[in-house]
Amino acid sequence: MGPAEARSRFRAGVRVPTAGWAPGYAQANMIVVPREYAYETLLFGQRNPKPCPIIDVTEPGSPYTALAEGADLRTDLPAYRVWRDGELVDEPDEITRYWSDDLVAFLIGCSFTFETPMLAAGIEVRHISRGSNVSMYRTNRQCRPAGRLSGPLVVSMRPIAADRVADAVRISGQFPSVHGAPVHIGEPEALGITDLSAPDFGDPVEIRDGEVPVFWACGVTPQAAIMTSRPPFAITHAPGYMFISDVPDHTYAV
Amino acid sequence: MGPAEARSRFRAGVRVPTAGWAPGYAQANMIVVPREYAYETLLFGQRNPKPCPIIDVTEPGSPYTALAEGADLRTDLPAYRVWRDGELVDEPDEITRYWSDDLVAFLIGCSFTFETPMLAAGIEVRHISRGSNVSMYRTNRQCRPAGRLSGPLVVSMRPIAADRVADAVRISGQFPSVHGAPVHIGEPEALGITDLSAPDFGDPVEIRDGEVPVFWACGVTPQAAIMTSRPPFAITHAPGYMFISDVPDHTYAV
Repeated sequence: MGPAEARSRFRAGVRVPTAGWAPGYAQANMIVVPREYAYETLLFGQRNPKPCPIIDVTEPGSPYTALAEGADLRTDLPAYRVWRDGELVDEPDEITRYWSDDLVAFLIGCSFTFETPMLAAGIEVRHISRGSNVSMYRTNRQCRPAGRLSGPLVVSMRPIAADRVADAVRISGQFPSVHGAPVHIGEPEALGITDLSAPDFGDPVEIRDGEVPVFWACGVTPQAAIMTSRPPFAITHAPGYMFISDVPDHTYAV
Repeated sequence: MGPAEARSRFRAGVRVPTAGWAPGYAQANMIVVPREYAYETLLFGQRNPKPCPIIDVTEPGSPYTALAEGADLRTDLPAYRVWRDGELVDEPDEITRYWSDDLVAFLIGCSFTFETPMLAAGIEVRHISRGSNVSMYRTNRQCRPAGRLSGPLVVSMRPIAADRVADAVRISGQFPSVHGAPVHIGEPEALGITDLSAPDFGDPVEIRDGEVPVFWACGVTPQAAIMTSRPPFAITHAPGYMFISDVPDHTYAV
């Protein structure tokens, strides 16, 4: 299934995590803010490029992106989150009724982009094998603030066989603009993560003997900044329920 | 000579192109705009990352950068350009009298960053050998606009021996956040450059038999956008007279 077909299913109401969908095409996190917060959001991305690699910014009021012709950011993601003063107030399937001419959408690279080349190299990606959402955790590391926006680094975690961790580093490191190499390998306590079986976002996955938890910077980080910084209004994708673009993964490889 | 010593000489009035100075430390282009233009400037960088890789943004009114402790962006570059309504009105050694609480400075990666590893690989960098400024040209390629900002791509050119062009691509490609691999190799006419001996910025350099002109995206591109878009006020570095940071070149290598 290609990206346009996937988007049309989500537009029709299919609500599933997108890992493994439209393989070979880049997926993206989304954060939508009032124009008055656009500079600080863009600057937060510039100052925290590992968790927040911004790959497109819409014109104010426009739901269209250069990453997929004809896509509508108000309807083409499988699930959204709506935030008021930092509180989650709705998790709708589409956001047309929340849209206004004052909103700017930021699309942020997603680590799902390098899962296809990891699978091609024979590295198991457990949440894809299990058909579940990736595990994500808030950490004790703070992002560099930008004006009124601050918050902790969020990471995604994949259990990787110890003899394939170096390959996972090498492969993901070829995609620096979509989170790139891991930020942390093993030792979750050092990130302030006390229980891997209770992720802050997404689903838990089994970690087997001989496997190491590997942590990548995650595009859910701006949602944690919203929860911390409490802007009056924001919309995001639901974690793991991404925008699927028309851009081939290899576009982001170096 | 280290970067702090170089900056102190420039602060004392030394006015020279910085290629080859403080080898091993990243140099940066600078553009300073009123706060009201900050979002469009940052967005112009996001939309044109090859010529405008933004590596730091100051707080409004602050002349200090995270890239070099104690450096003062108002005095520590060897030469500046001051622009009003898109016209060059001054080329001072320091800009203290032009500074105000309303200004935001953007530092942009510079291709001088990968000249040190090119030299280490035995590739001659002619403008360093000759002690002159690098050759820079406006091209017929347009950048992706951002609000009121638009303009042509500017490139720097280095003549490279035909049997070392691939090495120059490989080495510069390891630095994607400071312009990265060339945008064009040979065939200057296809970029709209009719006379390599008459660069739009910097000095001409000899191209010898067996050498190919190789073009990299250049951080002078925002200056061309100022000339095209005519914001009421801006300050930039003088082309080739860069800010020298305390950040080692290898920080930007992947």
